[in-house]
Amino acid sequence: MRTMNIAVLLFDDFETLDVYGPVEVFGRLVDIYSVAFYSLDGGQIKNKHGVSVLSAKLEDINKDLEIFLIPGGLGTRKEVENKLLIDKIKEIATFSKFVLTVCTGSALLARTGLLDNKTATSNKRAFNWVISNGINVNWNKSARWTIDDKYYTSSGVSAGIDMALGFISNRHGIEFARKIAFEIEYNWTEDKDNDTFKAE
Amino acid sequence: MRTMNIAVLLFDDFETLDVYGPVEVFGRLVDIYSVAFYSLDGGQIKNKHGVSVLSAKLEDINKDLEIFLIPGGLGTRKEVENKLLIDKIKEIATFSKFVLTVCTGSALLARTGLLDNKTATSNKRAFNWVISNGINVNWNKSARWTIDDKYYTSSGVSAGIDMALGFISNRHGIEFARKIAFEIEYNWTEDKDNDTFKAE
Repeated sequence: MRTMNIAVLLFDDFETLDVYGPVEVFGRLVDIYSVAFYSLDGGQIKNKHGVSVLSAKLEDINKDLEIFLIPGGLGTRKEVENKLLIDKIKEIATFSKFVLTVCTGSALLARTGLLDNKTATSNKRAFNWVISNGINVNWNKSARWTIDDKYYTSSGVSAGIDMALGFISNRHGIEFARKIAFEIEYNWTEDKDNDTFKAE
Repeated sequence: MRTMNIAVLLFDDFETLDVYGPVEVFGRLVDIYSVAFYSLDGGQIKNKHGVSVLSAKLEDINKDLEIFLIPGGLGTRKEVENKLLIDKIKEIATFSKFVLTVCTGSALLARTGLLDNKTATSNKRAFNWVISNGINVNWNKSARWTIDDKYYTSSGVSAGIDMALGFISNRHGIEFARKIAFEIEYNWTEDKDNDTFKAE
């Protein structure tokens, strides 16, 4: 079986754990998944946590992409207005086999229109702002993560780990996912519909 | 108040989340903590998850260091035998105000002798190997994280997030720590002595 490629979108002021939570989960399955980092223009991408990552250009992503991972973070407030980036996200999300968003990453995906009439969630602390970026999306305020067609969207930050484990569970079985949660000693919220941090 | 410096130790095949879990917690307190990455020789440090980080040299760490963070990961199996690295860890851990280890990072710290007669923990899935690196350490098999003097040691991978929140709680109050856990939507194990993943 060939390794399945995961392209992680980066932009300045991405949220650290939105990226590295799922990267931990998929990354340790080194025989199955291969993780790489991309940004609109390539080069070093930084955030306010002191993290800097060297990225390739989004245009270099191959069309046989398995998973496109879109993190959130403060940078999304600016990037939702970046038409070049949103257009590129739409193009890649369209050919990618699966699209996974973490936290306010769903606001970026919502801006493409691809989430219209689909169920999605986001960070419960930024929910009203996220909704404003996709008024035709069926926003779920109580899910830890959602699945609709090929789109997985998770709640805030840590919930990206739960969603990644949920993705693994759907593809490789729940016992396999539980084994990973056990190895990384993570208290996985197995029920995607039951978020401790649900919005009012 | 001056920003408190956190030096994160890196070595090839460090565990992704051991590093970026605590970096998420401390990094978002950008007015209080400042995070930087170091390795023995500096340069790009990689792991099998596809992560690559540019690091400065350990010898460049200033002696007024606040926090020295030591992650675990498969690379520790090799690095416990790296006398140059262990000596450097000992030197830095001695002058650092606090030392925090995640997962098998406690095996590296144990090799310096600084944990002798102190309480510590580690990844519960690698406990016997960790113990073999510090036979005079009081290893705790049931803690999510431990505190002894200036040494904080956490259990496996995700537990680094719980420990970082515990550190924040001790320094800034539990409500402040709970607020961060809430913001990153993390189900924090507040009781350090009660690990879901405790060893048999």
